[in-house]
Amino acid sequence: MHVGRLALLASVPCGPALRRLRGTARACVADDAAYMRLALTQAHAAFAEGEVPIGAVLVREGKVIGVGRNRVERDCDASAHAELLCLRSSAAALGAWRLEGTTLYCSVEPCPMCAAAIRAFRVERLVYGTANPRLGAFESGMATANPFAPCLTVESGVLAEQASELMRVFFLRARGRRPYAERANEADSHLDPAYGSVQQRLRRAVRRFTRWAWL
Amino acid sequence: MHVGRLALLASVPCGPALRRLRGTARACVADDAAYMRLALTQAHAAFAEGEVPIGAVLVREGKVIGVGRNRVERDCDASAHAELLCLRSSAAALGAWRLEGTTLYCSVEPCPMCAAAIRAFRVERLVYGTANPRLGAFESGMATANPFAPCLTVESGVLAEQASELMRVFFLRARGRRPYAERANEADSHLDPAYGSVQQRLRRAVRRFTRWAWL
Repeated sequence: MHVGRLALLASVPCGPALRRLRGTARACVADDAAYMRLALTQAHAAFAEGEVPIGAVLVREGKVIGVGRNRVERDCDASAHAELLCLRSSAAALGAWRLEGTTLYCSVEPCPMCAAAIRAFRVERLVYGTANPRLGAFESGMATANPFAPCLTVESGVLAEQASELMRVFFLRARGRRPYAERANEADSHLDPAYGSVQQRLRRAVRRFTRWAWL
Repeated sequence: MHVGRLALLASVPCGPALRRLRGTARACVADDAAYMRLALTQAHAAFAEGEVPIGAVLVREGKVIGVGRNRVERDCDASAHAELLCLRSSAAALGAWRLEGTTLYCSVEPCPMCAAAIRAFRVERLVYGTANPRLGAFESGMATANPFAPCLTVESGVLAEQASELMRVFFLRARGRRPYAERANEADSHLDPAYGSVQQRLRRAVRRFTRWAWL
């Protein structure tokens, strides 16, 4: 598990104010798995609805403010990602779009859109489960989010196996429905207009399949 | 005005299919100012509502599919940017979240969240007015969007003066309401936790004010 600023925070000597913060931070870390389990419940619900199984939960001071799960197909909205829906419903519940002092739990590493939204909503801590090797904004394929999120504490790897397994099963099932080349084409076409012949796309799909568990 | 792939497209010899496409592209370019005027109308409406004055219009084959204006304060939603609202309402109107063959007109350069959303919705062409020197994702302060938008044709500078003037007046008025240091603090605090003393913040605010027209 990668631990960001919190680890540093726990190792420095500090006054009463910092000690209080350290206490809160420790409590948060201890509860991470519990909140991640809630996010995974949302991911399972998305799976049951035929959506890419990703879930998110927003927490402030030990209280769940909002939850969200991927609903792109159901809402007919490409921005209806778990994180964005969770943030929007949380802001509506609190009556404020600045969600300072909150921690967002996501079952999968957020994409660049969600990463930017996390900063726009002023979330202070992000905990995610498994990495998203192709579309992840923090450590993976599109790791472009860091320059615009310097104040965000990011941790990863909490219950990663469960989230990863859910994604793997979902994509294996989705793959079973359509020919492999067609899916490779679809996945690549919006990234590269010259995505090549069927053979090239097949090669790329196989390469991807052997490199990563579910993408 | 910066012209991307369309300029290239117009200069290459081509068959009937490409010639048709070239014709469409040319018609689009000729209408850019007209559609941008619509986006500016939306920006003016946002201004009247006390929101940051940004507007967006989505067009496919000469037909306006959806419009949007900034509504962060009104909707209590940090993601309620003009572009995202325009894309969501367009997808709802069409009953499909893949908005292929569309052009998005924005009065101001989109932020990284909106830039990523533009790709998520599969928009093919983006035309924006004025640059956003601090938060712009294409040519300005946070130009991180290009790696995840290689298929997007981007043009800028259409009716830039009008959009820029609207933003300038808005921010001048907003500044009039609160002390300068407080605003500098607010603007910087989410980018840098060690944003310094009141003097440092004032210095930074003055520097920013003298460098850019409205940010």
